[in-house]
Amino acid sequence: MKQISRFSHFGELSDKDYFRIALSVDCVIFGFEDGELKVLVINCNIKEYRGKLSLLGDLVRPDEDLDSASYRILRERTGLGDVYLEQVQTFGAVDRHPAGRVITTTYFSLVNVRDVQLTLAENDLHWHPVNDIHDMAFDHLTILHACHERLREKVDDHPVVFNLLPKKFSLRELQCVYEAILNTRLDRRNFRKKFFMMDWLVDLDELEQDVPHRPGKLYRFNAAKFTRKPKALAR
Amino acid sequence: MKQISRFSHFGELSDKDYFRIALSVDCVIFGFEDGELKVLVINCNIKEYRGKLSLLGDLVRPDEDLDSASYRILRERTGLGDVYLEQVQTFGAVDRHPAGRVITTTYFSLVNVRDVQLTLAENDLHWHPVNDIHDMAFDHLTILHACHERLREKVDDHPVVFNLLPKKFSLRELQCVYEAILNTRLDRRNFRKKFFMMDWLVDLDELEQDVPHRPGKLYRFNAAKFTRKPKALAR
Repeated sequence: MKQISRFSHFGELSDKDYFRIALSVDCVIFGFEDGELKVLVINCNIKEYRGKLSLLGDLVRPDEDLDSASYRILRERTGLGDVYLEQVQTFGAVDRHPAGRVITTTYFSLVNVRDVQLTLAENDLHWHPVNDIHDMAFDHLTILHACHERLREKVDDHPVVFNLLPKKFSLRELQCVYEAILNTRLDRRNFRKKFFMMDWLVDLDELEQDVPHRPGKLYRFNAAKFTRKPKALAR
Repeated sequence: MKQISRFSHFGELSDKDYFRIALSVDCVIFGFEDGELKVLVINCNIKEYRGKLSLLGDLVRPDEDLDSASYRILRERTGLGDVYLEQVQTFGAVDRHPAGRVITTTYFSLVNVRDVQLTLAENDLHWHPVNDIHDMAFDHLTILHACHERLREKVDDHPVVFNLLPKKFSLRELQCVYEAILNTRLDRRNFRKKFFMMDWLVDLDELEQDVPHRPGKLYRFNAAKFTRKPKALAR
């Protein structure tokens, strides 16, 4: 390790006092099931928080970048490789982890629950409704809320929600996803009008099958049509 | 240090292989001067990057939270305490720092350059036009771009720009700030119309003094009127 005293204004501390942090990555993996926004969690098995829900995370390896670590966790826990993943925030309170100073960088991901194989049954890995979670291990409830808030902001002008849906979906399903994320009821006509204005959908000329209501038309997301909305002030 | 083997799936690594990271904080401090968006930089004095521009940063102390570290850096470098500060992204490429594994969490801040005392003259601390920066030490150019992009997204629906201006300002100055951040010319009439719709301004019933053009009316920001814009889909 080379000298890094050029960094610090604190003469009383040496390099080795600084190079003592571990870094973890925690993933908030959102899914949509039974009309609810859900998150993939396990039961925490460390003494201090035993029995509480915990997000999926792991320490970052010495030779691993942050994004690689979060993709690895997702792959190990869901079997999925090619998924939406976005860094949200890093949490570094001095006493946030009982094992020492562990800083955690958090990511959120959106997956279609039907694509996920929950083969890794350890620690009761399961989908849990976001609205039913009021307590978690560590600072994970704060992390969950921060990622949910980022998702809420994101859906307004980014077609990120399509990652939660199957390739073909009805407008009813699409609206349900938005309502679950925003935790509010939306007006059906306004929702459809605004959605068609955004021009993100392709009408597949097919109808839903085996549904307990009048079958709706099926659509797919048209990624080619997505361009970032011009900013209001620049329009 | 307690056992943390519960974390890791890698039997070949021990705790001490993980607790070897240092964490730094880098601040992208934006200011507005002479019609340009500027950033506060120093000349890097470490061997590998000598003479290149560098952001203001420092290692996070063992007993320091992330936000506290960034406020400390701001205070030390600008003399300012009560400033806008927002965490943007954490950069953790394995080889990003020559001194060892140093992860950096980045923040952006917006200050009024007239409030800043650049008393700390070491390393040629100075305001540099963002558009003139094409090379920096470490990954700091990437960090600068990420923070500028976050700022661009933010100004669309958040009154964050007022932090760059004096308490009293004209609409001409306000438009200049937006143009500098967005790096584009805006239509004067549309800008004013949209701004008044947002209802963020208080007319002070005063005129600019000593300006080389027809004096404009002066305004102040009305923080009380700021409420988060309802999301388009929920409207």
